Amino acid sequence: MINIVISDIPKYLKKEVLLKGWVFNVRSSGSVFFLQFRDGSGRLQAIVSKKEVPAQIWEACEKLTGESSVELSGTVKEEPRSPYGYEMAVKSLKIIHIADSYPISKKEHGTEFLMDNRHLWLRSPRQIAILKVRDEVIWQMRKFFKDKGFILTDSPILTPTSCEGTTTLFKTDYFDTQAYLAQTGQLYIEATAAALGRVYDFGPTFRAEKSKTRRHLTEFWMLDAEAAFVEFEENLNIQEELVSYVVQNVLIEKKDELELLERDTAILKKVKPPFHRMKYSEAVTKLQKAGYEISENDDLGGDEETALSKDLDKPVFITHYPSKIKSFYMKPDPENPNLVLNNDMIAPEGYGELVGGSQRIDDLATLEKKLKEFKLPRKDFEWYLDLRRYGSFPHSGFGIGLERTVGWICGVKHVRETIPFPRLINRLNP
Amino acid sequence: MINIVISDIPKYLKKEVLLKGWVFNVRSSGSVFFLQFRDGSGRLQAIVSKKEVPAQIWEACEKLTGESSVELSGTVKEEPRSPYGYEMAVKSLKIIHIADSYPISKKEHGTEFLMDNRHLWLRSPRQIAILKVRDEVIWQMRKFFKDKGFILTDSPILTPTSCEGTTTLFKTDYFDTQAYLAQTGQLYIEATAAALGRVYDFGPTFRAEKSKTRRHLTEFWMLDAEAAFVEFEENLNIQEELVSYVVQNVLIEKKDELELLERDTAILKKVKPPFHRMKYSEAVTKLQKAGYEISENDDLGGDEETALSKDLDKPVFITHYPSKIKSFYMKPDPENPNLVLNNDMIAPEGYGELVGGSQRIDDLATLEKKLKEFKLPRKDFEWYLDLRRYGSFPHSGFGIGLERTVGWICGVKHVRETIPFPRLINRLNP
Repeated sequence: MINIVISDIPKYLKKEVLLKGWVFNVRSSGSVFFLQFRDGSGRLQAIVSKKEVPAQIWEACEKLTGESSVELSGTVKEEPRSPYGYEMAVKSLKIIHIADSYPISKKEHGTEFLMDNRHLWLRSPRQIAILKVRDEVIWQMRKFFKDKGFILTDSPILTPTSCEGTTTLFKTDYFDTQAYLAQTGQLYIEATAAALGRVYDFGPTFRAEKSKTRRHLTEFWMLDAEAAFVEFEENLNIQEELVSYVVQNVLIEKKDELELLERDTAILKKVKPPFHRMKYSEAVTKLQKAGYEISENDDLGGDEETALSKDLDKPVFITHYPSKIKSFYMKPDPENPNLVLNNDMIAPEGYGELVGGSQRIDDLATLEKKLKEFKLPRKDFEWYLDLRRYGSFPHSGFGIGLERTVGWICGVKHVRETIPFPRLINRLNP
Repeated sequence: MINIVISDIPKYLKKEVLLKGWVFNVRSSGSVFFLQFRDGSGRLQAIVSKKEVPAQIWEACEKLTGESSVELSGTVKEEPRSPYGYEMAVKSLKIIHIADSYPISKKEHGTEFLMDNRHLWLRSPRQIAILKVRDEVIWQMRKFFKDKGFILTDSPILTPTSCEGTTTLFKTDYFDTQAYLAQTGQLYIEATAAALGRVYDFGPTFRAEKSKTRRHLTEFWMLDAEAAFVEFEENLNIQEELVSYVVQNVLIEKKDELELLERDTAILKKVKPPFHRMKYSEAVTKLQKAGYEISENDDLGGDEETALSKDLDKPVFITHYPSKIKSFYMKPDPENPNLVLNNDMIAPEGYGELVGGSQRIDDLATLEKKLKEFKLPRKDFEWYLDLRRYGSFPHSGFGIGLERTVGWICGVKHVRETIPFPRLINRLNP
């Protein structure tokens, strides 16, 4: 008999197969056991009929507890009445392990309890669906860049200095010196862009920020992309193409998971270029009219981002921020050098900032001046200045946060559910 | 005129196109400039003929230095005599930036000099080829797992404790407590395997080891895979399938790069299942006969690995190590409980250990006993013990080191060339 997984069932309909997995719910009518069974690839209902199986199989069923692991064999068929679509008529059942009384039940649990039991909470249908969407989002992002000729050049996590001050960085002893955990790989991929033209990195990044919001993790995944000879406008185009590509493909590939998550997919279907575009100054005017206390030179916080985007059907680019409140490496707007050629991309429906991007300064003197203005230690940036000494080139790039993207696509309000083992200011376990 | 990249040229033969990139070598015959040009996607020779171009184009050529960035337009054609296969007859040339005198020349440079200038060294043809192979290896690994139904579940870097002592871990303050940078995500993906069946993670890992060898980085990428209901033998099969799949596909997709690296690909073509298999005890006997001072219960070092594998045509699995010298979570061999159901996979040609794998202990009491034997703090492992309390399941997995795999496939002797910005005991810059 062939050992398969549930997702392979369509190829084995009406055949006898062997499945290995977990019984997540057991119900009995007295003459029939209904076992809700999952194996990671999917779920089905297994029917054990007292009169059809040997006595010891029936007795085994009587011992089963939720989350016990078992081997089942029997015939599989489609069952439109089942929420899982398939059913097995069990001929044989072997217990692998009888689970202790499982701590997570169908009743409501508090967040801290679920987070303490994250290693078990991950087995719930909702968490499984989110993890599968996450996997697909990552795959589609990588596929997009591969198809566009971008080469993956991973950036280091251990870095000797920071690009924007060290107050929000984790620090570690590094043999006889110190190292910081990187918040972005951007500066590094500007160097690989000079070698390979179009590049990206994709890895964990770290922020020791004391923010306790639904949008912040201390450890989160970020994809940075950088493209040589790409300027501000084309950079926006790449960003909206990427996000549309990911959303549209996830809608196709993870239809069942989004349905389980009860995500309104009609609104996601509208996520296609062009996205909305708004200058920072317009955004400020709009916010002021709506009663927000914001003035020019204030950065946009989470509330402001939500206000700007909550009624939109697709993401909005906010562009041309004041240079003072943005990073040192952003290219000044030739039409107004107090502004920079940058953008944030805010998700619709109040999911916050997904992407930050900009054209980078390619002129050596301008960059040297900026390092001074930002009081950054020049010697740490000599290598970065080299990129402007040896064949400098116009280039632009952006960073997209994985967990916020997954949260938005899944319709999940708190990013803690969008990563297998979330790290928060008060959470390092399990 | 259309702006393309060199790798697109086959679609534009005999057409006039615009290219943007860098001139990495300039030579003149007096009436013709031969510009060696690269744009990240490829290389070509651009020919500027004095009598065919306006005077200011010719004068621009006279200013060009190595690594200057330029825009070129002209007709592209195949040129079998050129090492790059293509040539452009230049009609127009625009200087973007004249490079300062470039520090890396064709002469031999010392390793420290090259490492100090890693951000520029990356532009050399050899480094570009290695980075492209690395990108392809990563893609093929991920594709293999996707096709096999494994779900990516990334593990945390910031962890509260270590699975094998803290002496080789980087430590950081984590708000009011401490965290360690993970050396492996294995324990975490054992939890996600219970949710999703077949899983993997793939990210940077850290080892604060004072090893100064050609096989050690302090920060390197590792892929951990874990599969529910997979036992020892099947785990070996998955490993050899993975490695064969990656090697064979990289041979096809990165033929030109391997040629540039002068890699002997004949030997790589032989990398197909089944790999060699040897028990640890046989390996020790073999090494003793060859004059190595090794006794039972010694782990194999780099020299021993090299001795066992240097004459092989494909990788070898060394299996069934003494439990004392291996990790606490490895399942004892039922035929000899002093041994464990584990394996290392050693690359041929002396490239060292690529993979370490094992079946994991699935019995709660055995695991509790092992934690004691290894003097590990039980409270930090309660969550891990939970996986044996609630539907325990036979499972196996392995970790494969990315940089060593890339080094082997490329035929590169030192891992420092296999990652964009290597981190070594004495190297944190640039």
